[in-house]
Amino acid sequence: MTARIGIVGAGLIGRAWAIVFARAGMTVALYDVDVTALDKAREAIRQSLVDLKQAGLIEDVEAPLALIQTESDLRRAMADVEYIQECGPENIAAKRGIYAELEAVVDSDTVLASSTSGIAASRFTDQLSHPERCLVAHPVNPPYLIPLVEVVPTPSTSETAVNHTMRLMALAQQAPIMVRKEIQGFILNRLQGALLNEALRLFRDGYVSAEDLDKTVKHGLGLRWSFMGPFETIDLNAPSGVVDYGQRYGPLYRDVDRQRGDDDPWDSVTLAALDKERRERLPSQGLADQQAWRDRRLMALMAHQRTVTPS
Amino acid sequence: MTARIGIVGAGLIGRAWAIVFARAGMTVALYDVDVTALDKAREAIRQSLVDLKQAGLIEDVEAPLALIQTESDLRRAMADVEYIQECGPENIAAKRGIYAELEAVVDSDTVLASSTSGIAASRFTDQLSHPERCLVAHPVNPPYLIPLVEVVPTPSTSETAVNHTMRLMALAQQAPIMVRKEIQGFILNRLQGALLNEALRLFRDGYVSAEDLDKTVKHGLGLRWSFMGPFETIDLNAPSGVVDYGQRYGPLYRDVDRQRGDDDPWDSVTLAALDKERRERLPSQGLADQQAWRDRRLMALMAHQRTVTPS
Repeated sequence: MTARIGIVGAGLIGRAWAIVFARAGMTVALYDVDVTALDKAREAIRQSLVDLKQAGLIEDVEAPLALIQTESDLRRAMADVEYIQECGPENIAAKRGIYAELEAVVDSDTVLASSTSGIAASRFTDQLSHPERCLVAHPVNPPYLIPLVEVVPTPSTSETAVNHTMRLMALAQQAPIMVRKEIQGFILNRLQGALLNEALRLFRDGYVSAEDLDKTVKHGLGLRWSFMGPFETIDLNAPSGVVDYGQRYGPLYRDVDRQRGDDDPWDSVTLAALDKERRERLPSQGLADQQAWRDRRLMALMAHQRTVTPS
Repeated sequence: MTARIGIVGAGLIGRAWAIVFARAGMTVALYDVDVTALDKAREAIRQSLVDLKQAGLIEDVEAPLALIQTESDLRRAMADVEYIQECGPENIAAKRGIYAELEAVVDSDTVLASSTSGIAASRFTDQLSHPERCLVAHPVNPPYLIPLVEVVPTPSTSETAVNHTMRLMALAQQAPIMVRKEIQGFILNRLQGALLNEALRLFRDGYVSAEDLDKTVKHGLGLRWSFMGPFETIDLNAPSGVVDYGQRYGPLYRDVDRQRGDDDPWDSVTLAALDKERRERLPSQGLADQQAWRDRRLMALMAHQRTVTPS
């Protein structure tokens, strides 16, 4: 694989993408206007690679590190790249500026993929001369530990750009999915939101503590969902598959929707009560350590998954 | 632990509970009116214990097996048991009959716990002389691989019965949670339903294939949820915790609810389309093999989780 990848923005997400591509043997040009950010990024990337090596997930730290070049000149950075992963600020004006600059320095068929989690790419690429090579490739943080990537074309995106991105992500050992039409929150955050909405209502209305709700998922639902999706789970949970399951449980789930409607649980009182319970279990000063624990658990889970039959 | 546990019903759930309690060193009386069902249960239990041993999750097959007595006489079965796990048919009339029989043969303080997934225990225990020792202890199938147990008191249940059940489940290496008030679907199935409702709508409306939706969870959301709950996940996903997260993402999730309302996706056309895609990937005759694969993956995941720091 001799692909050369450009990354715009050396923040958390940009650095993580650099690891994803370099780990797969691709050359990476990591661009940022801020030279200090680039130096910081290099150190952070090295530390993440050391952690990955300790977890047995990569064999060597220096080889991928050598594939990552940092660069503060956009034209030099983006010379000869076939694919650019944009990780700029989450606002339309900033992204419009970045895409205008990019279009001025790269070939017309270089794919421009945005890491945005919330903005439809059509809103910042429609003004370009070549909007057909633009799309969203939305990662989950950090993408070198959570492989899902949501590939979302705009109405103008070409099939070539979509296929190029899907192939590249698969080569980089990610798990790309195709979101066929733009929709707010894409797929992952809509699913997360639907579950969180009901979770917050159950907590708010006194049915369950936050700790017990978390247990319900980590000792219950989440175990199967870590290697099967929700559809495969229900397909295997009724003797004749999904239709059988729908006949048995559909009415219950319909009631869950109807009883709640769109009653909004994201109010400040509910969040404050949730925060109170969380801070009793984990004081604010412990958040960073717990994030490091989460990443070690994700690494251990990834190492475990490599030892088992995928399906 | 010298507890003696009674189990009513030797079907799938009854057998699985027998494994849970015997694995923890407790004596189990497995009762069924049907003697053939008891013989079948014994063989099925032995096979499950062999599988658990092969996965490194138990050391010996014979020791737990020797703790399980099968019995077709209710009075003999339930002599001296301190706790009964009822696994009868899922209908109120049948359960009322079972509880009347049980009350006639056991002490007034023996806890009577139902495995029901869908019926509030008050609807089949309120007529008893001692409804205060009745509650739901709802497992996830199979409970010896998925530890969550939802403990749900009725309005009449005593604190003693709740505490007894919570302690017993913890001793049996399960993960009990306390559902403070009766609610349809309890906690786990309501959370699953909320996610499935949105998943089916996204599939039905052409945003994503069933396969890609499953990937979104198994390569994305489900990884963290297999060792952290949804609240802990968002608490660690914003610099200052859940309140910070709510300010950032609450408006998006509110929109997810508002855009969908209670629009019902469990219609036969959607289920048929889902079934079509599932059966292309997994023909009906492959369902049993895939269920066996799922259980091997759950065993491997359980073995993996024993090797890592819990939190």
